[in-house]
Amino acid sequence: MSKGVVSKDEDYSQWFNDLVVKADLAEHSAVKGCMVIKPYGYSIWEKMQAVLDQMFKDTGHSNAYFPLFIPKSFFSKEASHVEGFAKECAVVTHYRLKNDGNGNIIVDETAKLEEELIVRPTSETIIWNTYRGWIQSYRDLPLLINQWANVVRWEMRTRLFLRTTEFLWQEGHTAHSTAEEAIAETEQMLHVYADFAENWLALPVVRGRKTANERFAGALDTYCIEALMQDGKALQAGTSHFLGQNFAKAFDVKFTSKEGKQEFVWATSWGVSTRLMGALVMAHSDDSGLVLPPKLAPIQVVIVPIFRSEEELAQITEFVNKLSKELKSKNIRVKYDSRDTQRPGFKFAEYELKGIPLRVAIGGRDLANGTVELARRDTKTKETVQQEGLTELIENLLVEIQDNIFQKAFKFRAENTREVDTYEDFKRTLDETPGFISAHWDGTPETEERIKQETKATIRCIPLDNKQEEGKCILTGKPSTQRVLFARAY
Amino acid sequence: MSKGVVSKDEDYSQWFNDLVVKADLAEHSAVKGCMVIKPYGYSIWEKMQAVLDQMFKDTGHSNAYFPLFIPKSFFSKEASHVEGFAKECAVVTHYRLKNDGNGNIIVDETAKLEEELIVRPTSETIIWNTYRGWIQSYRDLPLLINQWANVVRWEMRTRLFLRTTEFLWQEGHTAHSTAEEAIAETEQMLHVYADFAENWLALPVVRGRKTANERFAGALDTYCIEALMQDGKALQAGTSHFLGQNFAKAFDVKFTSKEGKQEFVWATSWGVSTRLMGALVMAHSDDSGLVLPPKLAPIQVVIVPIFRSEEELAQITEFVNKLSKELKSKNIRVKYDSRDTQRPGFKFAEYELKGIPLRVAIGGRDLANGTVELARRDTKTKETVQQEGLTELIENLLVEIQDNIFQKAFKFRAENTREVDTYEDFKRTLDETPGFISAHWDGTPETEERIKQETKATIRCIPLDNKQEEGKCILTGKPSTQRVLFARAY
Repeated sequence: MSKGVVSKDEDYSQWFNDLVVKADLAEHSAVKGCMVIKPYGYSIWEKMQAVLDQMFKDTGHSNAYFPLFIPKSFFSKEASHVEGFAKECAVVTHYRLKNDGNGNIIVDETAKLEEELIVRPTSETIIWNTYRGWIQSYRDLPLLINQWANVVRWEMRTRLFLRTTEFLWQEGHTAHSTAEEAIAETEQMLHVYADFAENWLALPVVRGRKTANERFAGALDTYCIEALMQDGKALQAGTSHFLGQNFAKAFDVKFTSKEGKQEFVWATSWGVSTRLMGALVMAHSDDSGLVLPPKLAPIQVVIVPIFRSEEELAQITEFVNKLSKELKSKNIRVKYDSRDTQRPGFKFAEYELKGIPLRVAIGGRDLANGTVELARRDTKTKETVQQEGLTELIENLLVEIQDNIFQKAFKFRAENTREVDTYEDFKRTLDETPGFISAHWDGTPETEERIKQETKATIRCIPLDNKQEEGKCILTGKPSTQRVLFARAY
Repeated sequence: MSKGVVSKDEDYSQWFNDLVVKADLAEHSAVKGCMVIKPYGYSIWEKMQAVLDQMFKDTGHSNAYFPLFIPKSFFSKEASHVEGFAKECAVVTHYRLKNDGNGNIIVDETAKLEEELIVRPTSETIIWNTYRGWIQSYRDLPLLINQWANVVRWEMRTRLFLRTTEFLWQEGHTAHSTAEEAIAETEQMLHVYADFAENWLALPVVRGRKTANERFAGALDTYCIEALMQDGKALQAGTSHFLGQNFAKAFDVKFTSKEGKQEFVWATSWGVSTRLMGALVMAHSDDSGLVLPPKLAPIQVVIVPIFRSEEELAQITEFVNKLSKELKSKNIRVKYDSRDTQRPGFKFAEYELKGIPLRVAIGGRDLANGTVELARRDTKTKETVQQEGLTELIENLLVEIQDNIFQKAFKFRAENTREVDTYEDFKRTLDETPGFISAHWDGTPETEERIKQETKATIRCIPLDNKQEEGKCILTGKPSTQRVLFARAY
C-alpha cells in the first residue's frame, strides 16, 4: 500500500480505482459516468491505437468517419439492435439554449428537433444507411472500413475504463458478397485482437464464441477474446460479430452479383475500446503501482542520478547523455529525471507507481566503478551491473520483461482455470477460488440464465478449439457434448 | 468539367461540393448538417493529424481526453462564452428510449436528466473545471494539453468540411503562471499553424489578430491565420486565443506562486479542424479535380501499365516492382494500378480527379526504349523520360511540385491583395476583383459592423507585422494609423 493506493488483496476494486487515479491514467469527471483520460493514460492509449491501426491497415482496412448522431428512426430499423441499446441511449432533443431574461441559461423550447437524435452507442445503423449509396456491384465489395470514435452508453454503475458512459473505441464495419467471406473476416479480426492482446498487452486470452444469450444485439454470431484478471474475474477484451444480412435488409443494401443477381450484402463489425486500459492495469499491476509491458510503456527506461553536488550531477549527466543517445538509437524510450526538487527515493516510488519497466540509478561511486544500478519493475529486483554492454543488456531485458509479464499472467490463468463436474463444486469454486470454470452445459438459454441468476457466473465463451467430450450439464444433468467456459465477469 | 464536376469559373461553390463528393473526400449524411468523411478524405486528414500531432509534441504538449458532454451550468459560467455558443448547442435531455407497446420506439419521459447536457461545441468549460483539481502550485505550470475530438455546433447553412454541424478538430488548452507566458504560447501556436499551412498544405497565410468583434467568445485576444481561396474569398484556417484569467476566474482555478501568493491561472486555447480539408481543396484544385501537395498526398506516385497482352503486363510489372521498391525505400508513397477491368484513360482521369501529384505510364515501347511517360498533376504537363535515374527524378519532382503549388497560391494572393483608399473603390473591388483588401479603418466596432452590413466584408485580421502609416478610414474618414485586411469570407 503506497501513495494512498489500497492493497489489492484487501479490496481489489478500490485498489484498481485508486491506482488508475494515482498513476495519472484517468479520473472521474464532473459529468456522471464520464471519465477524463489524463495525459499519461492517454499516451498508453495512443500506443495501443497506433499498433491496432497498423494491424487493421495491414489486413486491408481503411479509416473513415461517420456522424456522432443517429436519427431515432434509423436506430429502430433493426429490431434486436434497438432492443439491445434502447435502455442506454443519450437523446438529443433540442438545438439551442437561450437566456430567460433573468440571466438564466435555459433550453429554447422553440428549437425542438422534429426527430430526436441518438448519440451513437455503436454505428451499425448510420453506417449501413451510408453503405446503401456506396455498394452497387460485387466490384464494390469487400468494403473494409474502420472508425476511431467516441460512443455513449448510458451506464448506471460506472468504473473507470471498464464501464463508462462515454468511451473511446474503434469499430470496424465490413461488407461482403458471401456469408463465407464475412465469417472469415469475423474470425480474422478476432485473431488480430488476440494477437494484439497477447503480444502487446502481454495478456493471454481465450478465443471463443458467445452463446445466443450473450451475443451482440443484431448479430448472428459473436466471437470474443476473454481474459482473466488477478481477482479471478473474467474480462471481455474484444468482440467480432458476424451480422449476416440483418443490417443489409434493414437498410436495403443490395449488390449485383457476378451472375447479375440482386443480393443482400453480408456484414461484420468488430471493436475494442478504452476498456483495454482497464484490462492492462488489472492483469499485471501490484500494490506498488502499475506494471506495464515494455512494448506499450510510454517510458521504457527511466534514469535517475544520485548526486551530492552540482559537479557530480554534471559528470553523471555527461554519462547519461551518451547512454540515452545509444538507447534512443535502438528505439528505446528513455527519460532522464535530473530534477533537483525531488529526492531519488521519491522518484523511485513515482516510477514504480507509473510502471516504468526498467530503472537505472547512477551515483558518484558508480561512475568511479564503471557500474550502474538496474531495477526491474516486474520482478522488483535490482542489481549492480557494468556500464559496458549496458545498452544491449537493457535491450534484451525489455524483451525478457515483456515475456515474463505474459508468462506470469499465463501461469495465473492456468492455475485458475478448473474443470468442475457438479453444481455444488461449481458454486464453491466460484466463491473460494474464483477463475475460469470449464463445465458441461445442456446448451439451452434457460439453463444459462438460471445459472447466471443463481451464481452471477456467465458463459464467457465456447472456446474455438474446444475438445468434444460426453458429459452432463452441471445444473440439469442433461447430456452435453462439450465443456464451456464460465466465470463471473466485469 | 469532368465526371460530373461543374467548372469552377461557372459556379465555384457547386464546383467545390461536386469535387469533394466525386473525389471521395466526403459526402452529406442522412443527419442534417453532419458529413461522412470517406476513406480517401480521411486518409488525408490522418496525414494532417500526424504532422500536427508531432508539432504539438515537439513544442511540449501532451494529448488527453475530456468528456463529450458539458453540464449546462458549467457552460453558463463564463458569460461571453455562453453568449457566443448558446444559439448553436445540441442538448441532451433524456437517457433512455422505450417501446411504446405498439412497436414504436419513443423517448422514455421517465428518464429525463435533472440537468441538461450540452454536446461540446468547444471544451474550455469542462477542461477548466478539471484543471481546478490539477493545478495547485506554480510547479504544476505550465500545463500544456491538447485534445483530438469531435465537436458540435448547430449550423443552419452547412457546407462539406467548411461548416458542418459536427466536425473533427484538435483543441489545445494550456495553463500558465503569467500573462506573458500565456501570450507567448498563443503566439507560438499561431506560428505552428502558419508553418503547417505553408509547408504542408502549401497554403500561404497571413498571420494576424482579430478585432474585438471577431474574437472567440471568452478570449481577450484572438490570433488567426487567414488564407485566400481561388474565388477571392478569405478562409480562416486556424485560431489561437489568449483567454486571460476569464476561465480561471469562472472555475476558480488558482495556484500558489513562487512568492507564496494565491493567483488565478492564465489560459490559452487554439484549434484547427477538418475545415483545413476544405481549404486544401479550394486553394489548389482545378476543373479536372484535386491538386494535392505531395507532402499530404496519400498516394504520391501512381504507376499505370499500358499493355496489350498478359505477357507484356508481366514484363512491365517486373520493371514496376523494382521501381516501386526503390521509391518506397525513399519513403515515397507509390501505387501500382494493374487492374485489367479499366482502361488507362479511365485510370488517368481517376487519378487526376484524386489529385495524385505524379503519374508514371509505361507501355511495351517504353520497355524497349528504356523510357516511361511522366505526368505532373499540378502543371498538367507530361514528358517521356529515361528509366535511368527515375527514382531521383521523382524524388526531386515531388519537392518541386510542393513548392510550385505554394508559389502559385502565393502569386495568386499577391495579385489579389489590393490597397484601397475610398469606400467606392472598396465596394467595387469587392464585387469586381474580390480578394484581400488592405484599407484604413477608424478602429471602432461600429464602423466595422456597418461595413459588414453594407458589403458583407469583414476585417479578417490586423496583420502581425503591420506597417504603421497615417490614413483615413474608408467609411468615416476619421484618422487611422494602420491598414487592416478586409475580405468576404467563408
